[in-house]
Amino acid sequence: MIDGVYLDGIASGIKLSGKRDLGYIFVPDACASACVVTQNVCRAAPVLITEQYRHLGKFKAIFFNSGNANMLTGSAGFKTAEQMQHIAADSLGLTLEEVAIASTGKISEPLSLDKIQAGSVRLFQSPHAQDSDACMAAMLTTDLVTKSTHQTAIINGQTVEVAGMAKGSGMIEPNMATMFAFLVTNVAIESELLQAIFSRAVADTFNMISVDSDTSTNDTALIISRPVCTIDWADPIQSDLYYKLVYQACRDLAIQIVRDGEGMTKLMHVTVRQAPDVTVAQHIVKAIINSPLVKTAVHGGDPNWGRIIAAAGKAPGASACVNVERIALSIAGTCVFQAGEPVAFDTPTLRQHLQASDTVAIELMLGCGSVVVEGWGTDLSKTYIDINVAYT
Amino acid sequence: MIDGVYLDGIASGIKLSGKRDLGYIFVPDACASACVVTQNVCRAAPVLITEQYRHLGKFKAIFFNSGNANMLTGSAGFKTAEQMQHIAADSLGLTLEEVAIASTGKISEPLSLDKIQAGSVRLFQSPHAQDSDACMAAMLTTDLVTKSTHQTAIINGQTVEVAGMAKGSGMIEPNMATMFAFLVTNVAIESELLQAIFSRAVADTFNMISVDSDTSTNDTALIISRPVCTIDWADPIQSDLYYKLVYQACRDLAIQIVRDGEGMTKLMHVTVRQAPDVTVAQHIVKAIINSPLVKTAVHGGDPNWGRIIAAAGKAPGASACVNVERIALSIAGTCVFQAGEPVAFDTPTLRQHLQASDTVAIELMLGCGSVVVEGWGTDLSKTYIDINVAYT
Repeated sequence: MIDGVYLDGIASGIKLSGKRDLGYIFVPDACASACVVTQNVCRAAPVLITEQYRHLGKFKAIFFNSGNANMLTGSAGFKTAEQMQHIAADSLGLTLEEVAIASTGKISEPLSLDKIQAGSVRLFQSPHAQDSDACMAAMLTTDLVTKSTHQTAIINGQTVEVAGMAKGSGMIEPNMATMFAFLVTNVAIESELLQAIFSRAVADTFNMISVDSDTSTNDTALIISRPVCTIDWADPIQSDLYYKLVYQACRDLAIQIVRDGEGMTKLMHVTVRQAPDVTVAQHIVKAIINSPLVKTAVHGGDPNWGRIIAAAGKAPGASACVNVERIALSIAGTCVFQAGEPVAFDTPTLRQHLQASDTVAIELMLGCGSVVVEGWGTDLSKTYIDINVAYT
Repeated sequence: MIDGVYLDGIASGIKLSGKRDLGYIFVPDACASACVVTQNVCRAAPVLITEQYRHLGKFKAIFFNSGNANMLTGSAGFKTAEQMQHIAADSLGLTLEEVAIASTGKISEPLSLDKIQAGSVRLFQSPHAQDSDACMAAMLTTDLVTKSTHQTAIINGQTVEVAGMAKGSGMIEPNMATMFAFLVTNVAIESELLQAIFSRAVADTFNMISVDSDTSTNDTALIISRPVCTIDWADPIQSDLYYKLVYQACRDLAIQIVRDGEGMTKLMHVTVRQAPDVTVAQHIVKAIINSPLVKTAVHGGDPNWGRIIAAAGKAPGASACVNVERIALSIAGTCVFQAGEPVAFDTPTLRQHLQASDTVAIELMLGCGSVVVEGWGTDLSKTYIDINVAYT
């Protein structure tokens, strides 16, 4: 973890398993923050509270729990979320506008304020702990592994860092919801600029992954900066290096989330090239990674290119740029369709290759522009159904 | 079948199984036709040809094959589709604008013109056959059952009929695509009015079903009328009675398609009420019936209402009308959420009921309008994955 960043996690009893479920990240001398929350219209109570303050860019801490999403819990749930923010502010000597909160886990069950209160007394006994593993464990739900990243680059002669952790095993998890991504960085920056950089990186990474097309009600991505390194933001080279650093950290975490996707056995990496604009390219990438028929074909290692083109053709805006006479498609580097005609390829060899790979690369060239958009998805396995068929 | 409607189907060898795969429906004295084809940007060759002529409203026959979708087959495939139309026109004594064609089955394999030619010689030896069963069998792909309907109503003192048949076991089937719905009716009507009535009925029925959210490249719905009954179209009561008849026939076929959905064990019937407009209500219905998490919960008979509300909240336009403080949700007639708060219900009893039912009714009241929209979907089972994991 980055210097000057404190973090910890404990077991408060919210998770019946007795695993860690309450944690914080605290950056006392933070100079800026940026935050992006779920676009689902139905938002959990903690998201509504964090949403109220995020535009100020003053977050110095995030206080979170797992095991319960505090979603659809009525007015009692909203009060519990307010209390969470108060507890963290009081414990860390911060104002309310400096504390973000987040919850993840089951929907619709009451979140016990008693457990939060009792747990936070223990948790904040050591507000300057540096236990990354405990903190990461405290945010997991059905995740099989923790996810973290630490990216560095030399910019303006200094070592600039972006580090972070994430949780998530589906856009929505078995019983509920929620992707978290909490990052810290060490540059002197205004919150407004950090928000612009972070929003762009989130759009290109976390918003371009999908395990099951279901948008969580609790998703929260947050970055907090300490003013250690100085960057000349007016210099496009330095600015661009820093954007790439943030992008790389987000991309690393996003792919780790997909790799831990519910029931996943293969990562689908889709690239749409030569697109006329970003929006339509994103729609096409999403249509491919969310198509149940493409997902099942990828699961079987089947180079079923017809399904990929059919999925692209149903995307919003496809009429402007998906023309079978002009597109070209490759799977795992093998061109399978071009200029309106199937391209002969060695099907058994390609199938064998796909079945042996843990990643399937799909590239679709549209031939009507220069925009490139990437996205990452999972295959669809029977394990996904096992995980989601009930939550009792 | 309706008087004056001729139909048949034979095995031409396109299906390697030796089952029926080539058929026609012929209405020699048709007065009007209406036709709706897939909205997928990537359309099969037969769809492109039918699309060229459908606005004329002069179709008197449809000639179709199953076992091969003639999709992504390049210029050779387009020529084969053109030949199909010529063969049917010559055989039935019709002009090209009077013949619709359709293909369903595997994508991307060449469709053998030789088999079509040889088969059609046998098929059209009896252009006035009346073998519904043979015709219906010839359009099946992975369907487990044939689907037909015959609706009648007394309008203006006459027995008005709408009869039809459909195929489809997914918006896209294992290897490919395609829903067909071919209907006949017996009213004197202009094609333009028939198209308006049929388009509206298709939008409310076939366009509101989903097995797997994948839009076929070959979907074709067609209705042909014989001028037997006369209706006073200026009389809103008679017009409305006729619309309801067409709607009922389409709805009946649409639900039969969902019931035969790939791997399905339970039908999901979603109704959104009190919506401000049709478009947003349709988006919400679709978001619910296409949500993998709702589909898996329905599969398990699990009354997971949080997933339903989360799915509604991610629908386009939801921000205008999905407000958790105002919505109410019921599952199988049991109210589970209202006015921002969960409603206590007997979970084990409801679960037992859902597990024992072959249909799960979901009703979402938005509390901000008077529009009602229905939709029909399937659960998501492991059999769906088995069916779609490969197509060799």
